[in-house]
Amino acid sequence: MNHEFYMHAALEEARLAEAIGEVPIGAVIVHEGEIIGRGHNLRESNQDPTAHAEIIAIKQAAGQIGGWRLNHCSLYVTLEPCPMCAGAILQSRIQQVIYGTPDPKAGCAGTLMNLLDDERFNHQTEVVTNVLKEECSAILTNFFRSLRTKKKLLKQQSKQQNPTGP
Amino acid sequence: MNHEFYMHAALEEARLAEAIGEVPIGAVIVHEGEIIGRGHNLRESNQDPTAHAEIIAIKQAAGQIGGWRLNHCSLYVTLEPCPMCAGAILQSRIQQVIYGTPDPKAGCAGTLMNLLDDERFNHQTEVVTNVLKEECSAILTNFFRSLRTKKKLLKQQSKQQNPTGP
Repeated sequence: MNHEFYMHAALEEARLAEAIGEVPIGAVIVHEGEIIGRGHNLRESNQDPTAHAEIIAIKQAAGQIGGWRLNHCSLYVTLEPCPMCAGAILQSRIQQVIYGTPDPKAGCAGTLMNLLDDERFNHQTEVVTNVLKEECSAILTNFFRSLRTKKKLLKQQSKQQNPTGP
Repeated sequence: MNHEFYMHAALEEARLAEAIGEVPIGAVIVHEGEIIGRGHNLRESNQDPTAHAEIIAIKQAAGQIGGWRLNHCSLYVTLEPCPMCAGAILQSRIQQVIYGTPDPKAGCAGTLMNLLDDERFNHQTEVVTNVLKEECSAILTNFFRSLRTKKKLLKQQSKQQNPTGP
């Protein structure tokens, strides 16, 4: 399977998140070569703490297949899954997870821990790491850099408008 | 706070799941004494692997509050949360989780591990265990016992109808 091809599709999803000011993370789910679920982070837009790219893609794929078992599917995601999304991957019995860049703050597919390879759970998922790592990492780094610049500018503007303000 | 009062409300939700043949697990979310989110397991009905009681209750509570941060809320659930739901509890910054009965197969709030008390994540949630444990455990035990009996009866009927069958 061409991992880079599908990771590019996940990156397209991440760019959709970026375009609306969301942290740019994207995911797709692939079944027999076909993309059957897509998702990008919508936490702020939907004000929903569960609206991560993976969860949205999993729900769409289950709807497409007409069942909750995605055991012949692969999930491609630009950032390593958090505990919630790793758990959703186990719940949906996804066979393989391919991620772009590791998440040192919350990654639960090998960085902080590997929930996908714990034999005490009733399912394990194979993990492939660092596919298009540079692109997947850069889109996040650029997003946060741009956010910091915007905040700095707003602060400066606010100071100029209220030089004696609090 | 009267933990038993709210756990009874979570048990009511579990009974709604039971009534439609779902594994009977229920949850409620409480903010300043008021129930602002309710959910029961709907995995089979919705064919959605993420449709656990806690996820449904969290989404409803976030909708009610109009924001994804549930940091002044408590979540009551009849069964110890799985990794996905423990992760969703962290994502929504819930302050306190109160569960009924531990889950030796997938419990991630103290039994197999405690994702809610891992200082590497950016949030920790207080856990209270074993509230109305007997009732919360019994509803599950009875459900699975009844399921086994039904399956046995169906097998016997099938044998009687096709004595030479495969």
